Amino acid sequence: MEILITNDDGIYSEGIFALYAALRKVGKVTVVAPDIQRSAVGHAITLTDPLRVNEARRRGKFFGYATSGTPADCVKLAIRSIMKKKPDMVFSGINLGANMGYNILYSGTVSGATEGALLGIPSIAISLATFVKPDFSRAASFAVKLATSAYKRRLPPGTLLNVNIPAGPASRVKNAVSITRQSHTLFKDRFDRRTDPHGQTYYWLTGSLDQKDAAPDSDVAAVCRGRISITPIQFDLTDYKFVTELENWEF
Amino acid sequence: MEILITNDDGIYSEGIFALYAALRKVGKVTVVAPDIQRSAVGHAITLTDPLRVNEARRRGKFFGYATSGTPADCVKLAIRSIMKKKPDMVFSGINLGANMGYNILYSGTVSGATEGALLGIPSIAISLATFVKPDFSRAASFAVKLATSAYKRRLPPGTLLNVNIPAGPASRVKNAVSITRQSHTLFKDRFDRRTDPHGQTYYWLTGSLDQKDAAPDSDVAAVCRGRISITPIQFDLTDYKFVTELENWEF
Repeated sequence: MEILITNDDGIYSEGIFALYAALRKVGKVTVVAPDIQRSAVGHAITLTDPLRVNEARRRGKFFGYATSGTPADCVKLAIRSIMKKKPDMVFSGINLGANMGYNILYSGTVSGATEGALLGIPSIAISLATFVKPDFSRAASFAVKLATSAYKRRLPPGTLLNVNIPAGPASRVKNAVSITRQSHTLFKDRFDRRTDPHGQTYYWLTGSLDQKDAAPDSDVAAVCRGRISITPIQFDLTDYKFVTELENWEF
Repeated sequence: MEILITNDDGIYSEGIFALYAALRKVGKVTVVAPDIQRSAVGHAITLTDPLRVNEARRRGKFFGYATSGTPADCVKLAIRSIMKKKPDMVFSGINLGANMGYNILYSGTVSGATEGALLGIPSIAISLATFVKPDFSRAASFAVKLATSAYKRRLPPGTLLNVNIPAGPASRVKNAVSITRQSHTLFKDRFDRRTDPHGQTYYWLTGSLDQKDAAPDSDVAAVCRGRISITPIQFDLTDYKFVTELENWEF
């Protein structure tokens, strides 16, 4: 099995290295990832600038290709220009921090896997639901299981898996899995209004995820209960239910 | 009716000015838009940099607020920090070039309207399906009609309208409207591999939309027939059909 790995925390992050080390046990792995952190880039692609690609080393060995682009750029570049043949799977992660609910719209991690799915490849986004003392071992060993299952059982075209792993090391927590839906909780954001040393105003986005209204069958609820959440997601955004009503509007 | 306008072509583009001039006839309009073109940014938000906001003038008069952020940033900033009360509607556009099919995942125009919908405001993305000698008059006059209808009839929470207008001036083309679904045609992309003046390799993304397989009830098919396409879209990405099958997988 040939596996492409990308992420949005950058090629030198711990999460992508843990994923690489784990998936090498079950396949041939190519890493193409942003040269620096590019979080919250959504499904951005780079049109107005050239893209640079450089070989990256970790622990003294060739590790992969660092690009000046977004996760979606990385997957396009890997498949169109870097890899000799199309990979059998695309993994994006392991992200530092959860990607659940409407936050997946902003997620570079999810967008890397989305680009894989758009190019017809079974794709998985994987995130660790903590920022504090992250232990990627549980997520990494689950990624191996998931790669094997998804390779054997296939995913429907256009569908990818969005996986969120609760915090905690692999050894102490059982792999309890919930198949979930995307929660409808909203990011409660606000802006800090500040003044720079030159007297000019600037704004800084801050806020938190409102988790209190998460439905019991949702990604947020599963992770809060310490379970691994797998949400199958797809990218036909049409609101089919509203099509008929809209046909009765007058224009 | 209070209307917020944003776009991704930048505050000095022709399309946003045409939309502003038209919507002023039916409401109080606030413009908050990127200070330069920020196309294909997807649903990116700016977390790692401060955001700047400056007043922008056009034709010698105050026009709106130019920000250093993406369309999603602009809508958040407008609603959280700039406007005194929440607007009744958010418009994003008029974009130079169509936003249809899977391309809407990359679209800053659509993401501006998405952010409005996420914040609970009826929102509309509007794009003109040409890059050549654009005439925004048809799109602008249709935006006025749509604002009036949507204000009166409301949109379901979480649903926005993605509108694409075929090329051609308002006076010569009848407003034939199709309610459509997002087409599943893919962007056929490739990379130009080039060498810079210093002997270094760089890549430039290029390609075209593959329109030949668009279903008859899709956005692409409607615009190809010279009709205005309105696709209702929503942002629960869960693939509900696949949830049950996934529950039978072993992990």
